[in-house]
Amino acid sequence: MPKMLGDRTIIFENKPRIISYGSVVGKKEHEGPLSEEFDEYTIDSYFGEDSYEKAESKLQKTAVQIALDKVGLEDSDIDKMFAGDLLNQCIGSSFGNKERGIPFIGLYGACSTMALSTALASLFVDCGAANNAIAVTSSHFCSAERQYRFPLNYGSQRPQTAQWTVTGSGALIISNEGKGPYIDSALFGKIVDMNITDTNNMGAAMAPAAADTIMRFLKDTKTTPEDYDLIFTGDLGYVGKHCLYELLDKEGIDIKCRHTDCGCMIFDKDAQDTHSGGSGCGCSATVLASYVMHRMEEGKLNNILFISTGALMSPTSSYQGESIPGIAHLINIKI
Amino acid sequence: MPKMLGDRTIIFENKPRIISYGSVVGKKEHEGPLSEEFDEYTIDSYFGEDSYEKAESKLQKTAVQIALDKVGLEDSDIDKMFAGDLLNQCIGSSFGNKERGIPFIGLYGACSTMALSTALASLFVDCGAANNAIAVTSSHFCSAERQYRFPLNYGSQRPQTAQWTVTGSGALIISNEGKGPYIDSALFGKIVDMNITDTNNMGAAMAPAAADTIMRFLKDTKTTPEDYDLIFTGDLGYVGKHCLYELLDKEGIDIKCRHTDCGCMIFDKDAQDTHSGGSGCGCSATVLASYVMHRMEEGKLNNILFISTGALMSPTSSYQGESIPGIAHLINIKI
Repeated sequence: MPKMLGDRTIIFENKPRIISYGSVVGKKEHEGPLSEEFDEYTIDSYFGEDSYEKAESKLQKTAVQIALDKVGLEDSDIDKMFAGDLLNQCIGSSFGNKERGIPFIGLYGACSTMALSTALASLFVDCGAANNAIAVTSSHFCSAERQYRFPLNYGSQRPQTAQWTVTGSGALIISNEGKGPYIDSALFGKIVDMNITDTNNMGAAMAPAAADTIMRFLKDTKTTPEDYDLIFTGDLGYVGKHCLYELLDKEGIDIKCRHTDCGCMIFDKDAQDTHSGGSGCGCSATVLASYVMHRMEEGKLNNILFISTGALMSPTSSYQGESIPGIAHLINIKI
Repeated sequence: MPKMLGDRTIIFENKPRIISYGSVVGKKEHEGPLSEEFDEYTIDSYFGEDSYEKAESKLQKTAVQIALDKVGLEDSDIDKMFAGDLLNQCIGSSFGNKERGIPFIGLYGACSTMALSTALASLFVDCGAANNAIAVTSSHFCSAERQYRFPLNYGSQRPQTAQWTVTGSGALIISNEGKGPYIDSALFGKIVDMNITDTNNMGAAMAPAAADTIMRFLKDTKTTPEDYDLIFTGDLGYVGKHCLYELLDKEGIDIKCRHTDCGCMIFDKDAQDTHSGGSGCGCSATVLASYVMHRMEEGKLNNILFISTGALMSPTSSYQGESIPGIAHLINIKI
């Protein structure tokens, strides 16, 4: 049985393991610093489909298939699937996975979805409600731009605080048997709203939620940043990262020496003109299901925190003058 | 520890109980056959706010507060909240609950959300990952119409197969101690797509998913419809209900004598001009958190199945010619 600590950190008992993972990205991500880490890439924004939304569904379908194939599992071996994405009504997930016949739990956590889905999959496996579970999410630069900002054809300019939505999908298979790093604990985030309204500065809107989740977890587990090999945040980017440092500094917590952000890792800031870094559900998902897993399998990382961050607004809420509530979910992965 | 049966029905061990519930509805629902069942209603479509979306957030906030107040609990007593709605990026849930400081798990299951959130809350409570958990969802006729169909001002006509989105929110508190009906088991649905493309006939699109989930559950538990006092589906409406009967008839299963549909219960078909009945996340949520709970507390219902059904499309997927995938999640509630 999992155990719950004071501020709700959940400690798993049975070491739910990441027995497989798959990642697929677009052209820009393939040209970035993590190029060699990803399982597959496409240079076609449409991925052979006739719309960006269908391309995004295919990204999820592909990432899941890669993860299944690596360990020789089939859809029928999977007891639950946890999936979500940024598209209205999460159609990337429902259409990408509709043919599999796997019991489906649809999530909406914006860019926090990879940690959210993995935490839920781990809990199900830990308590016996699933033997094998899949966690998957995706984003697509083109489908996100036209939904959240402007159709690409407008050629609108972006401020330096804006981030670049990652085209990609990452999938993990969590199991109660097999080999791989295990999820030791998880903490579900609270919604934190510091009244930031600039939709071109999501990093700043999400940083307070990341700070809140990290502080709760360190307090619950009586650990310090130095106890971890590396602390990955999802997609705070260059601006949001510094907001996080400031917020934690005020509480006497210094994570700088142990911290990296998936949004800062996935693109080359100078060469790729991505301003404040990568974002989107696919950002932390593809980094987790490639770079992080590779380093853990190689024993270069033994104990990490992975915190995906999400901005829970919509274009409608922003048009109506509402602020941007943030959320951050955390998982602690060990080998 | 929960136990998983062959086709993934989850049997809970520790009787997670519904210790409280709250419901709030709009004017039309208040004027319907279940008028006396709801805790609260508003005759103002804006619920005192300046947009329909903000009104929907307030519905969720209100339903949760009613449920908390009934048992004298506060936000800090709740370990997890499971919430989702129909609005793009689920802003009804994030804005409606952002001030509570409760660890938040955002869901997207369209109109299946009430059974989905309750099943997840029950699992968390059953395995010790929460002592108290809230499940909540909402919908609003006006915010749904303008997002999915046309702005109300257009006065567009609706075909007879169309359903009427319920304005309302229902919330349950699930706990590992206290009194109330308990969740005996749950089954998470698979996505089922029978290639129906008519967005004015959601009932027909969702019925195959409901049939699939009901058949899986009856097979797993070796029970028949007659073993239950009543089988509630979410919002199939009058058209979808008959599709469900036909599909189950083919498999030799007759649920007619034990079946009712929340979409057929909440409005007066003839007097209220709601065509094929009610729909929306708030439909099954408000019926569960009022009528169903009252009958169980009175001992008039002792053992029921509650199956919320969802259509996992978006306006974008429909414009692109995609079909409507359906999903149905089930919970078995007993006293």
